[in-house]
Amino acid sequence: MKVVIVGGVAGGASCAARLRRLDEKAEILMVDQGPYVSFANCGLPYHVGGTIEKESSLLVADERLFRERFRIDVRTRCEATAISTETKTVELKNVETGKTCIEPYDKLVLSPGAAPIRPPLSGIDLPGIFTVRTVPDARNIREWIEARSAKRAVVVGGGFIGLEMAENLVHRGIEVTVVEMLDQVMPPLDPEIARLVEQHLEKHGVKLALGDAVAGFQESGGGALEVLTKSGAAHPADIVILAIGVRPETSLAKQTGLELGGRGGIRVDAHMRTSNPDIFAVGDAVEVTDFVTGQQTLIPLAGPANRQGRIAADVIAGRDSRYRGTQGTAICGVFGLAVASTGASEKLLVRIGDADFEKIYINPRSHAGYYPGAKMLSMKVIFRKSDGRLLGAQAAGEDGIDKRIDAIAMAIQMEGTVYDLEEAELCYAPQFGGAKDPVNFAGMVAADVLRNDMPLSHWNSGEAGFLLDVRDPDEFSGGHAPVAINIPLNGLRERLGELPRDREILVYCHSGQRAYYATRILVQNGFAAKNISGGILSRAILFPGPQ
Amino acid sequence: MKVVIVGGVAGGASCAARLRRLDEKAEILMVDQGPYVSFANCGLPYHVGGTIEKESSLLVADERLFRERFRIDVRTRCEATAISTETKTVELKNVETGKTCIEPYDKLVLSPGAAPIRPPLSGIDLPGIFTVRTVPDARNIREWIEARSAKRAVVVGGGFIGLEMAENLVHRGIEVTVVEMLDQVMPPLDPEIARLVEQHLEKHGVKLALGDAVAGFQESGGGALEVLTKSGAAHPADIVILAIGVRPETSLAKQTGLELGGRGGIRVDAHMRTSNPDIFAVGDAVEVTDFVTGQQTLIPLAGPANRQGRIAADVIAGRDSRYRGTQGTAICGVFGLAVASTGASEKLLVRIGDADFEKIYINPRSHAGYYPGAKMLSMKVIFRKSDGRLLGAQAAGEDGIDKRIDAIAMAIQMEGTVYDLEEAELCYAPQFGGAKDPVNFAGMVAADVLRNDMPLSHWNSGEAGFLLDVRDPDEFSGGHAPVAINIPLNGLRERLGELPRDREILVYCHSGQRAYYATRILVQNGFAAKNISGGILSRAILFPGPQ
Repeated sequence: MKVVIVGGVAGGASCAARLRRLDEKAEILMVDQGPYVSFANCGLPYHVGGTIEKESSLLVADERLFRERFRIDVRTRCEATAISTETKTVELKNVETGKTCIEPYDKLVLSPGAAPIRPPLSGIDLPGIFTVRTVPDARNIREWIEARSAKRAVVVGGGFIGLEMAENLVHRGIEVTVVEMLDQVMPPLDPEIARLVEQHLEKHGVKLALGDAVAGFQESGGGALEVLTKSGAAHPADIVILAIGVRPETSLAKQTGLELGGRGGIRVDAHMRTSNPDIFAVGDAVEVTDFVTGQQTLIPLAGPANRQGRIAADVIAGRDSRYRGTQGTAICGVFGLAVASTGASEKLLVRIGDADFEKIYINPRSHAGYYPGAKMLSMKVIFRKSDGRLLGAQAAGEDGIDKRIDAIAMAIQMEGTVYDLEEAELCYAPQFGGAKDPVNFAGMVAADVLRNDMPLSHWNSGEAGFLLDVRDPDEFSGGHAPVAINIPLNGLRERLGELPRDREILVYCHSGQRAYYATRILVQNGFAAKNISGGILSRAILFPGPQ
Repeated sequence: MKVVIVGGVAGGASCAARLRRLDEKAEILMVDQGPYVSFANCGLPYHVGGTIEKESSLLVADERLFRERFRIDVRTRCEATAISTETKTVELKNVETGKTCIEPYDKLVLSPGAAPIRPPLSGIDLPGIFTVRTVPDARNIREWIEARSAKRAVVVGGGFIGLEMAENLVHRGIEVTVVEMLDQVMPPLDPEIARLVEQHLEKHGVKLALGDAVAGFQESGGGALEVLTKSGAAHPADIVILAIGVRPETSLAKQTGLELGGRGGIRVDAHMRTSNPDIFAVGDAVEVTDFVTGQQTLIPLAGPANRQGRIAADVIAGRDSRYRGTQGTAICGVFGLAVASTGASEKLLVRIGDADFEKIYINPRSHAGYYPGAKMLSMKVIFRKSDGRLLGAQAAGEDGIDKRIDAIAMAIQMEGTVYDLEEAELCYAPQFGGAKDPVNFAGMVAADVLRNDMPLSHWNSGEAGFLLDVRDPDEFSGGHAPVAINIPLNGLRERLGELPRDREILVYCHSGQRAYYATRILVQNGFAAKNISGGILSRAILFPGPQ
């Protein structure tokens, strides 16, 4: 059996190595059009910033290793230019010499990845405008910065790579402006969680130009550039990083007549098989099923790509492995803040017309408050209103973000509910968590909502009602929601007479806990009360500025 | 309805607050024999060490808060001395004045906790011998250390509290010896994982006297003590901390005729109800069902106690809440090393006669190797041989331990398998994890075993075979298992002729990965090969000393 693998990074390399482990006799050829296989593309921004000092650190496994350890024929700088499904051959072109050859295959695996989007704007090809996909990209960016002593950078695109690049450029002493078409950074997140990232970026000197699209690029003399936007702004830059997003590399698949999906990726079944039974596809170029929504989606992440590569290898070796779909679990660190998400966002659910969900906000500490160093973490959990099934979670904070999202990701994978979070038994010692971990706490709050113990409202729900602030007077006088009336929780029972019985009472406090207690008192005394989720902390996120 | 709660720390306090939220009208009386309710007992060692500076930080909620916020009648220094189930009354004694009173109850909740064991050894009551259970205990220890300028301490007992105390005493400049009857620290862990903790403690100057029981205590002049052991040793000490373990406080339950379980704790059903339908019990004093083994057990942990308190309140308020059992998820930090576990240990499974399990060892990095600062973590995962169900996991390392155990704890809770770990989609960016997270990696290795792709052996399995080291020659010459033959992986295919076909070949490398590749090559070439799990790293743990 001869297997040709096109693309030698995450998905392709995983497929090749796995296939060899399953089949000592298979003839395996892996080609990549770039100079390296199996490099750490997720590390590129950190090599630009200098945290990963040596370029060689990015080369996780090299050609020689594939050859010697796995007996895999590896050809770099080698592009697959055509596939004949009739003769079951692939045409390979040496990128340097232009020479081509024809290789037969029994099974073909496509792992072409996704390419950074380069919109056809005026000046897009000017020197000094870079994308970040390959090791040579990172090298070129470093060299450009050093040669020009770059002082100002514009990063176009506020997604994961854009923000990682922004942080790393700041680490090099460069002034950075991020231009983003949407009115938020981190498009997979809901805007109110993204806002926390935006505040943190600004605190660290990054300028944000949100809700503004790039219109073009021009030279401004002395080798400098200007990034022109639709709003009419001109951002000066010694270097421009294009991180608008990626587009699945489907040209070869298209040309071969393989089916594409509605999102523009290569269509595959659960076995990672394309519409041609002898051709598989894995990684950023394929459409996958969103594990939570069941919809087709494009999720360019390393973990899923690796897993898909393994599954393709399994199936080629005659096994029945299936890909369970992608949750989109992702994390990004910027200037010490981590922001992560798993599962569906609220805006995704709204977009697909799913209204059977509720959300809660909590702002607990990363570990026991009585042990020094606890940081606030802001978490949003989305769940099915009808049965409590977990749909998604997002969190931001300086400590303990990854582990909370990991635990919830595992619960989502197992089709768990908010009640499972409530009952979760996680590590607790004062420096690591709480006797009620934030994950438990999220489950408890959500379960209180579903059991109808705590009717819920949100700052942006548009509900009108009597606004009741149950914090202490000194907290209230330090800033509160307009028109709110202050009755501290501890005296609430004695002052019920001051509250209206003909209107809904919307209760809030600092983080939501005291308002929960107050809501319980009010509901049991016959008032129509709701807790505004996440308290004044959530309000500060939704409506930044002085309270 | 009048509810009396005996014991005002984790379980009792949670029960009281929850009950108030569910029932504004219930009359709630909570008593505690100590001076404080709802204090952070898990923080006591850190207050002794000074990390938690102020004693007041340990008081999570005080009497006033319970009174004002929850309308709960709190009485401290108040002991419940007798219960009459016929008249449904409880006798309460003011610990200071000795005065008693009788309080009627509709429902009674016992949350008496567990008391540190003080074995009846000679000299046990000498001044300078302390246990660590209450805020006054911590205060007395601090005062003793300061007044005597204590230089040497003996901690009796190498469990969680003992080791936390050892670390905190070292932080105060005190020389510490830990005397432990078992031949390992951290009794809930398997010995080979505990060994990592022992090595770390010794590296930080803690002396360990394992496998030696205390025989008695004596004064040695000048106010100093000696801790005498069964082996005949005499450890000098200016202060002794007794942390041998805890015993459920069952005297009141016994005296009331409530049923106890086989492990000596108060017997309760899933609703936390004792054998008397109007009396509930929660926390460290009750026997719970081990979620994994189904057996009755005593697990004195804060998280479960809180949850049990909430469930008792739910049931008293007429709800159908049930306790799902305890996994025993726990973590301990000592000198920057974290060690954690969840579910069943191997020794527990052996003890209860369950042979349907397999285990794997992995030693991956805490995050992507190409990003600086990754630490090795050592993980053991135990799973059902027949169906892959996860039974338990243990891990030790300087980074990322809590989150791996949390993710696996969630999987165990959801009755997940090693295949679920294999497919888990966790947060990945280079500073947080790997494209194949250690959790995935554990799942992959375990699944390889179950799919029979990788027959497994262990260093301590006693199997005889041809021992093959597939590391590079320089690694081999740096230390290897006795009688091992070195054939580096990359040249293995050419040297198959050097290997026996009539004996089992036991393959190892550094961490197990290359040995896995080698095992695949050998198995496919008709050899009877097994991978020794965890490689030379696991060997170093099992058989410390030069390799």
